[in-house]
Amino acid sequence: MEKVKTILLNKGVYSDNDAEAEKLRRELKKDGVFLINVMSSPGAGKTTTLISLINRLKTRLNVGVMEADIDYDIDAVRVAEKTGCKSVQLHTGGMCHLDASMTRQGLEELGYKGLDIVFLENVGNLVCPAEFDTGAHLDIMILSVPEGDDKPLKYPLVFRKCGLVIINKTDALPYFDFDMEKCRRNILDRNPQAEVIPVSAKRGDGMAELEQFFINKINGKEKT
Amino acid sequence: MEKVKTILLNKGVYSDNDAEAEKLRRELKKDGVFLINVMSSPGAGKTTTLISLINRLKTRLNVGVMEADIDYDIDAVRVAEKTGCKSVQLHTGGMCHLDASMTRQGLEELGYKGLDIVFLENVGNLVCPAEFDTGAHLDIMILSVPEGDDKPLKYPLVFRKCGLVIINKTDALPYFDFDMEKCRRNILDRNPQAEVIPVSAKRGDGMAELEQFFINKINGKEKT
Repeated sequence: MEKVKTILLNKGVYSDNDAEAEKLRRELKKDGVFLINVMSSPGAGKTTTLISLINRLKTRLNVGVMEADIDYDIDAVRVAEKTGCKSVQLHTGGMCHLDASMTRQGLEELGYKGLDIVFLENVGNLVCPAEFDTGAHLDIMILSVPEGDDKPLKYPLVFRKCGLVIINKTDALPYFDFDMEKCRRNILDRNPQAEVIPVSAKRGDGMAELEQFFINKINGKEKT
Repeated sequence: MEKVKTILLNKGVYSDNDAEAEKLRRELKKDGVFLINVMSSPGAGKTTTLISLINRLKTRLNVGVMEADIDYDIDAVRVAEKTGCKSVQLHTGGMCHLDASMTRQGLEELGYKGLDIVFLENVGNLVCPAEFDTGAHLDIMILSVPEGDDKPLKYPLVFRKCGLVIINKTDALPYFDFDMEKCRRNILDRNPQAEVIPVSAKRGDGMAELEQFFINKINGKEKT
C-alpha cells in the first residue's frame, strides 16, 4: 500500500468564508496552481473518473489530489496506487462539506508548491458542498446515468455553480431510462455557461475530450 | 394533474430537536400513525420504490406520503397520480435535511389523523438527514446497486441509524461490479440489527418481501 497521509480537518474558524476563499484562490494563482473542486452524489464515480483523467494528464502536468470523506481511508490510497500522484486523505469529522479553511489545511499537508493542478474530491453530497466556496478556480460535478436526467431540476444550486458537468457511466445508458438530450437541456436551463461532457470512466469513452478540456484550461491560461 | 399542496417549511425553532422528535413520536403513536423516514442518495429510486410499495399496501392500510425536496414539485404529484394516496410536497428552502419541527409542519398540512402509515421522503443526501431525528418510528434507507457496495463504509452514520436497508435496482446487477454479499456484510458490520431487503422497484423483484416487512411492523404492533 502507498503511504498516504490522512488529515483530520478542523472546522473553519473564519466567519467570512467567501473572503477566505478569495484569498486562497489568489495565493494559488500566484503559485501557478489551478484548484478544481469536484462534487457529486455518493457513488457517481468521482474517484474512478479522477484516476482515469489523472493518468492522462500526468505526462504533461504535475497533478495532486485531495480526497475528502466523512470517515474513510481507501480513496486516497487507491488514487496514489493507480496514478502515482501526490495524494492526501481529508477526514471532515462528520462535516457534510468543505470550506476554504479546510481546503487550505489539506493543501498545506499535500504540499502544493510545484503542482500545476490539484483536484479536491469533495464529500459525496449534492446539497451542502455547493453552498461553500472552497477557494477553487473551477467547480465541476459528476452526474451519473443511473441517478436520472431530472437531477438538475432537483438540485439546482450545484448545477448553477459548476463550469463543467461530467455525465458518467454512459456505458449503462442501454439499461436506464436516461435521456441525454433532456439532461443536457435541464443542465443548460439552470446554467447556460456549463460545459457538458458525457464519459464512461470505466470504458474510456469521452475521456480524451475531458483531458483536452483541462489541457485547454491550463494552457489557455483560463485561470480565473 | 392531481391537486397536491406544496409547503415551504420554516426552519425549526426548537433548540432541542431530540426532545421535539420524541414528543412528535409519542403523539403519533397515540393517534395510531406509524411514521417512516426514508433516506437515500439522489437518484437511488426513493419515489419509484415508494409508489410500488404503496400500491401494494394501500388495499390494507391508509397511507400518506410527504415528499421533501429543496425546490421541486414533481415527486408528490407523481406519487398522488400513481397511487391515489394523500400526498404533500415539502420545500426545505435549500435546507439539506428535515428536523422534527419541519416534519410536524408537513404532517399538519397532510392531515394525518386516520392514516395508518406515513412515509416521509427526506432530502436526497446520505450525510445531513442522518444527523437529525425527524420523530419517525422507523428510519429506513435505499441504497442502489450503481452506487457501489462500499457505501456503508463511507457513510456509516446513516447505515447505523436505519432499521431497514433496501438495496434497489437489482435489475442492474449484471452491469455493475456490485457484490451483494459484501454489501450485506458491510451493512451488518455497521449495524447488526438492520434488515436488508434487495429489490428492483422497476421490475417488482423483492417487493412482496418489502410489503410483508411493513405489514408485520403494523400488525405486530412493533411500533417503538
